[in-house]
Amino acid sequence: MSTEVIANDSALPVSGLKLGATASGLRYKNRDDLCLIAIPEGASAHGVYTTNRFCAAPVIVARRHEANARPRFLVINAGNANAGTGDAGIAAALEVCRAVAGAGECSVEQVLPYSTGVIGQQLDSDRLAACVPALFADLAEDGWQRAAAAILTTDTRPKLRSATVVCGAHRFTVTGMTKGSGMIKPNMATMLAYVATDATIAQPVLAELTARAVARSFNRITVDGDTSTNDALVTIATGAAGNVSPASADDELGQALLGGFEQVCGELARDIVRDGEGATKFVALRVRGGYSEEDCARVAYAVAESPLVKTALFASDANWGRILAAVGRAGATRLDIEDVAIAIGPCPIVRAGQPVTDYDEAAVTAVIKQPTVDIDIAIGRGEHETTVWTCDLSFDYVKINAEYRS
Amino acid sequence: MSTEVIANDSALPVSGLKLGATASGLRYKNRDDLCLIAIPEGASAHGVYTTNRFCAAPVIVARRHEANARPRFLVINAGNANAGTGDAGIAAALEVCRAVAGAGECSVEQVLPYSTGVIGQQLDSDRLAACVPALFADLAEDGWQRAAAAILTTDTRPKLRSATVVCGAHRFTVTGMTKGSGMIKPNMATMLAYVATDATIAQPVLAELTARAVARSFNRITVDGDTSTNDALVTIATGAAGNVSPASADDELGQALLGGFEQVCGELARDIVRDGEGATKFVALRVRGGYSEEDCARVAYAVAESPLVKTALFASDANWGRILAAVGRAGATRLDIEDVAIAIGPCPIVRAGQPVTDYDEAAVTAVIKQPTVDIDIAIGRGEHETTVWTCDLSFDYVKINAEYRS
Repeated sequence: MSTEVIANDSALPVSGLKLGATASGLRYKNRDDLCLIAIPEGASAHGVYTTNRFCAAPVIVARRHEANARPRFLVINAGNANAGTGDAGIAAALEVCRAVAGAGECSVEQVLPYSTGVIGQQLDSDRLAACVPALFADLAEDGWQRAAAAILTTDTRPKLRSATVVCGAHRFTVTGMTKGSGMIKPNMATMLAYVATDATIAQPVLAELTARAVARSFNRITVDGDTSTNDALVTIATGAAGNVSPASADDELGQALLGGFEQVCGELARDIVRDGEGATKFVALRVRGGYSEEDCARVAYAVAESPLVKTALFASDANWGRILAAVGRAGATRLDIEDVAIAIGPCPIVRAGQPVTDYDEAAVTAVIKQPTVDIDIAIGRGEHETTVWTCDLSFDYVKINAEYRS
Repeated sequence: MSTEVIANDSALPVSGLKLGATASGLRYKNRDDLCLIAIPEGASAHGVYTTNRFCAAPVIVARRHEANARPRFLVINAGNANAGTGDAGIAAALEVCRAVAGAGECSVEQVLPYSTGVIGQQLDSDRLAACVPALFADLAEDGWQRAAAAILTTDTRPKLRSATVVCGAHRFTVTGMTKGSGMIKPNMATMLAYVATDATIAQPVLAELTARAVARSFNRITVDGDTSTNDALVTIATGAAGNVSPASADDELGQALLGGFEQVCGELARDIVRDGEGATKFVALRVRGGYSEEDCARVAYAVAESPLVKTALFASDANWGRILAAVGRAGATRLDIEDVAIAIGPCPIVRAGQPVTDYDEAAVTAVIKQPTVDIDIAIGRGEHETTVWTCDLSFDYVKINAEYRS
């Protein structure tokens, strides 16, 4: 069988999956802020959630419900994270689930709630419950665009990606949407992301595909190093394509579908960084030559989260000294600075831990002035590598986060 | 014996120790940028240095010299860190030492060099060597004020502190100066700090007193989480007071002197945070109830270095949700969010992991608008605690670090 993954920047409908959106008026004016995803009976779904020990009420409820029943509906509100809201927050999340279950004729446990927005304010569940009829009326297979807009907070644009997976005679669609712009350093999940396919995928295989796709996409981005209380990613396989499920993530169909998930998750994760709060630059940080991928990630994150590196990038200042200083404090196993090499774009600037003698600052500055910057760091220890995507730290990051609640 | 530590915000001269300063014109105009500290024969001195694997040429040279000889002179330049400068940087640092040794009639190894400023530019050692006669001509016991001004970079003011230690019939002086404002997360040392006493303290006892004083002062502050390549702290005991050295840090005199060092190092470390780049607020973060002090520090640093917490503090926004989110991701041993309590100043805002029901946001906002904010976080696990000092993240931090090299 020949397999192929064809990327698509817009959102192809996923047969069997419907989405709806409406405006609750909870926090925002004149925009949708509430979204419903209807999953057909018999579909598989799998959620991964924040590793933050302080997790929001909807995360607690969604985890519990998912463990007990097959999800039929996902309900997502933007503007209020329902985090730090205690028992009242749990009750409010359940209240919203109950309203959806009533209209959707399923059990409360078949509804998973998701929230994003301000932490520490009680959720007005009555207001959201009152919107449920409007949500159901809006359900449609081509509802991705409106749904993706309804889940945004400080994001400046919706984030939607599709891929077509060709595997022999089969053609599958993988489509996903995400939101997130600040408090971004996902760990086993992202802010909020929903990725669906029309393929039939048995639950354990879907879980494995999800874990692998997330590892090098949503788990390799950082805006500000802050892991959210509400991070959640849900994958859905509607089964509308009528194929036989892959037996594992490693057989030919499993690998083809993994390619589709990786394509969509990777682009969505990078879309979050491109839309990072106040970001003016998108930076791909590749670290090579570590004893382990974890060592490479440690170095990459130390550089990606250094406020000094980030402000230098904002200023288009080729301040490689700040990069080298961040590499030096990252705590990589047996790092020897004399083996470190750094390049910005095509320009080598550090070799054997020392500045390249014919270092041309003007050429490097020209590269760093671009909206997309590649930084390559070789640490010369082992055979592993990884890439982390991040953005710069601008005046607007401070402005957005100093004013978000005022 | 009665012991007492009397704090002093200015710099009392330390008998036997002389300081001089001059303007080399290396980087700054119309200000001193080069400083010399002359240590009398027979004095003890002890240096602690950056843990960054990428350490600057002067750190490499100072460490090597200190291991081989008793220091007689410390020479410090501001404006150029002589870091990332390779073998040429080592040669330049040695060149400056050689000039000082010639004028001071001692071996080259008895001179320790220190540099602070921009990373990655070669040091013009000829220019500095030419200033050595002027430095020697300026040496005086009351030279602290000019010396403290000469070592500054982005700092907005000199940082000088003294304490008088009374122990029975003895009176000792401890005086220190420091510099540092950005790239501040010292680890076993700070940016640059020099602390001297007229007490006689044997070298091993001085090393022990230094380690203890640093642990809860310079090693408990953060501005931006970036550990510098040039961090160094040197303590000096001139012996001019003529006492018998304490036998250890734990005998009565050792404890009295430790009190003096802790007083001076603590205030100097907090002065760095107060003068943090762009800082508008000074924040003391106390974390109590960890299984270990290290666990408490992990939580404190996660909060202190969260860009979201720091921008909320800048905005005087009592966004305790961001604090709780940082606590939750800190990785403290067996943290249970239901045992977490948080207070801002006198106002409890989180109890048992849930918002305090009669939470008065206006009262908290009044507290958080002050230039000094105390945040108390109890994690309810064990008996340990620690305090970390930090500052907010303002527009000016971005401005200073985006423009520092341009």
